[in-house]
Amino acid sequence: MADAFVVAGEELPSRLILGTGGAASLKALEEAIVASGTALVTVALRRIDPNAQGSVVDVIDRCGVRVLPNTAGCYTATEAVRLAHLAREAFDTPWVKLEVIGDEDTLLPDPIETVAAAARLVEDGFVVLPYTTDDPIVARRLADAGCAAVMPLGSPIGSGLGIRNPHNIALIRQAVSIPVVLDAGIGTASDAALAMELGCDAVLLASAVTRAEHPARMAEAMRLAVQGGRLAYRSGRIPKRDNALASSPFEGLPAW
Amino acid sequence: MADAFVVAGEELPSRLILGTGGAASLKALEEAIVASGTALVTVALRRIDPNAQGSVVDVIDRCGVRVLPNTAGCYTATEAVRLAHLAREAFDTPWVKLEVIGDEDTLLPDPIETVAAAARLVEDGFVVLPYTTDDPIVARRLADAGCAAVMPLGSPIGSGLGIRNPHNIALIRQAVSIPVVLDAGIGTASDAALAMELGCDAVLLASAVTRAEHPARMAEAMRLAVQGGRLAYRSGRIPKRDNALASSPFEGLPAW
Amino acid sequence: MADAFVVAGEELPSRLILGTGGAASLKALEEAIVASGTALVTVALRRIDPNAQGSVVDVIDRCGVRVLPNTAGCYTATEAVRLAHLAREAFDTPWVKLEVIGDEDTLLPDPIETVAAAARLVEDGFVVLPYTTDDPIVARRLADAGCAAVMPLGSPIGSGLGIRNPHNIALIRQAVSIPVVLDAGIGTASDAALAMELGCDAVLLASAVTRAEHPARMAEAMRLAVQGGRLAYRSGRIPKRDNALASSPFEGLPAW
Amino acid sequence: MADAFVVAGEELPSRLILGTGGAASLKALEEAIVASGTALVTVALRRIDPNAQGSVVDVIDRCGVRVLPNTAGCYTATEAVRLAHLAREAFDTPWVKLEVIGDEDTLLPDPIETVAAAARLVEDGFVVLPYTTDDPIVARRLADAGCAAVMPLGSPIGSGLGIRNPHNIALIRQAVSIPVVLDAGIGTASDAALAMELGCDAVLLASAVTRAEHPARMAEAMRLAVQGGRLAYRSGRIPKRDNALASSPFEGLPAW
Repeated sequence: MADAFVVAGEELPSRLILGTGGAASLKALEEAIVASGTALVTVALRRIDPNAQGSVVDVIDRCGVRVLPNTAGCYTATEAVRLAHLAREAFDTPWVKLEVIGDEDTLLPDPIETVAAAARLVEDGFVVLPYTTDDPIVARRLADAGCAAVMPLGSPIGSGLGIRNPHNIALIRQAVSIPVVLDAGIGTASDAALAMELGCDAVLLASAVTRAEHPARMAEAMRLAVQGGRLAYRSGRIPKRDNALASSPFEGLPAW
Repeated sequence: MADAFVVAGEELPSRLILGTGGAASLKALEEAIVASGTALVTVALRRIDPNAQGSVVDVIDRCGVRVLPNTAGCYTATEAVRLAHLAREAFDTPWVKLEVIGDEDTLLPDPIETVAAAARLVEDGFVVLPYTTDDPIVARRLADAGCAAVMPLGSPIGSGLGIRNPHNIALIRQAVSIPVVLDAGIGTASDAALAMELGCDAVLLASAVTRAEHPARMAEAMRLAVQGGRLAYRSGRIPKRDNALASSPFEGLPAW
Repeated sequence: MADAFVVAGEELPSRLILGTGGAASLKALEEAIVASGTALVTVALRRIDPNAQGSVVDVIDRCGVRVLPNTAGCYTATEAVRLAHLAREAFDTPWVKLEVIGDEDTLLPDPIETVAAAARLVEDGFVVLPYTTDDPIVARRLADAGCAAVMPLGSPIGSGLGIRNPHNIALIRQAVSIPVVLDAGIGTASDAALAMELGCDAVLLASAVTRAEHPARMAEAMRLAVQGGRLAYRSGRIPKRDNALASSPFEGLPAW
Repeated sequence: MADAFVVAGEELPSRLILGTGGAASLKALEEAIVASGTALVTVALRRIDPNAQGSVVDVIDRCGVRVLPNTAGCYTATEAVRLAHLAREAFDTPWVKLEVIGDEDTLLPDPIETVAAAARLVEDGFVVLPYTTDDPIVARRLADAGCAAVMPLGSPIGSGLGIRNPHNIALIRQAVSIPVVLDAGIGTASDAALAMELGCDAVLLASAVTRAEHPARMAEAMRLAVQGGRLAYRSGRIPKRDNALASSPFEGLPAW
């Protein structure tokens, strides 16, 4: 019955993690955070000054949600590790979303630098949640390195293309025993539901909400879709069959 | 803000319509109806005796939901029209889900018999909700005949294959101004969310809930997915793009 | 070994049927016909004057291919039947591609008018090849009416969207014993190959060749893809499996 | 006009590369090689004794095609490099298909070991064609390391699932300037055509042919599909559009 979402020994009350980038205003962001029901919000250290007045940090504090600093904008393990250390001091949390990008056009993660950075950060005592491709072998390496979760992409950041390769996400679910968080590519509610049905433990998204025409409404849509997808995953769906199956046969049936 | 679902001038408080076929027991059915939050439940006249004790009708009464009798099991317009009249007397409602099947293997609707039956039933004062293929031309003919809604399939009944041709559902949405209800083929929550995102006004499903391992849980999943999908449809989703878009750029940005 | 394509008792030496609409010039059309290897070319009576000099008819004569007049531009059975009769006289052939459109935006066929027209044309002694939706029930009705083939669409005319619902094409292949010709929607070679792999006996296309940047080259591509797809259909493809299967195991194997 | 397929400065007369694993007999293999028109055939050093009588090597010699030894069965860079050196001596060729597997269930490549092995083999003077995932960042790293081509998978080896993520294959085509060879996952002809339409320079497949019911026929199907797909890629296909486009308009047109 209980279906807790636990990362690194801590239970999070929501399976939706929200990114803050792309919001039109702090007000819009706050409304979206509230509507989403999230308990964990990512912020890019590069983009914010944790001590600034009227910053995204104030919004997060006011909402009573936890911060997950990320290393967005890093291209090498060395850069990412350095930034993670700064983030730990700035936000006073050992949790970090590790992001090491390989290409500024696609913003796809670099698996080699990511695995290297993950290993060092685990050694340094971080709770590491790495953004990664949908490659099951890389996911297992990240798990073996001691990451607290793996966060494969559905499609490129901000593309809204959804989950390009559901088969790989299902393989990742089989390959590791730590939580799997679908990160990047979500465009709409059905994408988020599908992620959960494939066995992901949570969904992380930003643009799909912050850049929608109605961010708070889309945040609520995502909240419902994540819950619905998770329940469906736990409900034992009917198998797919090529031919029809009548809801119930007509012959010989007594009235029930 | 208000987003009412209105059929034939009557507002229905839920966009999920539930079929009753396939339920393992009346108890399981009742739990599923409650968990789904539905306000409208279909029953096959052929399968039930409206006056029987301990029947599906008692369950529906107890749940306080409305009945939508269907003409399941009919292969010709003549049969369907006759059965609809019986249903109107038995259930004391002019509403009817018109179902005229063309093939017992695929249970696909016969468009020619369906259009003919719809026209006659409208003349006879019924509120007609026809089950149809995903053919936009047939949908428009049904609308022109005076149907109260059109109910295109996603895929064959009980197949769980979801929406095989989303493009056609979107074309149907453009082709008619009456409500569009996705009927048949739904397998899991993301299918239901997708139907709503394509512009459907509601979703009708049976097997996906009644034959799931945990029917009541799946019914709740569907409730959330339909709500989430509808909200997403009304939120102005981000466009799909082939390349990535950073959540927000890094250069020249003040701390917000 | 032999794998003849026979329609109405006549063997056609190619499984690619070419439409003529959209060609930039008669020269481009002629080159495309030759490169495609087709033996059957459709023409719209409405668009041509069969007696004109320098017309598409001259091209077809020169190429030594057979003409399949079509009833493009008709919206009712009555119109289509009348046009078919004119075409029979003009081109001196009982063969006709029956096309009754339901909507000028989507150019989707109207199944009700199409079935009605088909029945009349069969009675009038035509060899009827109807353009239809991908609806298996309508396809069977057309077969029952005595059509020589059924020609379901992959997607709307000129859309280049390929085969939106492969499942339905496979169901049509099971539903009828007359030839199935995939007509409309083909965009590129792999679409044509897929049509054949689904069990279609032939492919009919126009825009994909005539509007390509290099029509003759694309015509050759389609010729190869149709042949390749047909061979693949007859080769007993490997099953799809979710997990990998090594090309051959390594243990205990002698050198072969 | 000319459209040569050149790898490491050498032109190959066919864009289809054939694997030998899975063949039921040497005779079946020989017939498939001939029917495929291939000019390059992979062999697993582990599976064959290059000096044995009546071996796959004899078949390859007789067919007059080139050998591409592979390192199938290796799990680390060290193993793969060692095996590549043995293969170079045994087959007297510096060409090698580099394969470093990360998992025996999925047989997916390990990107980290693959990149490491590739760099060493390039240094040692090999012409390296690495089997890799569909990750554009890894593909670029392999190109930067001096590989002669990159060979991304469509889906797991032997799965027959085709190209799970066409978007990634198109991104790889943009990311590197060396040849891209689609390797693994092909099930049927349309898969091979699609690979070429996405911009791949060639296709490598084994099981799809060797394990088909009729291997030689499927080999011919693949030959045609690869040629057709390549031509289509070079023909400037029509754009996809959501609405129909009449083959040609009817009003105001003179007869042509």
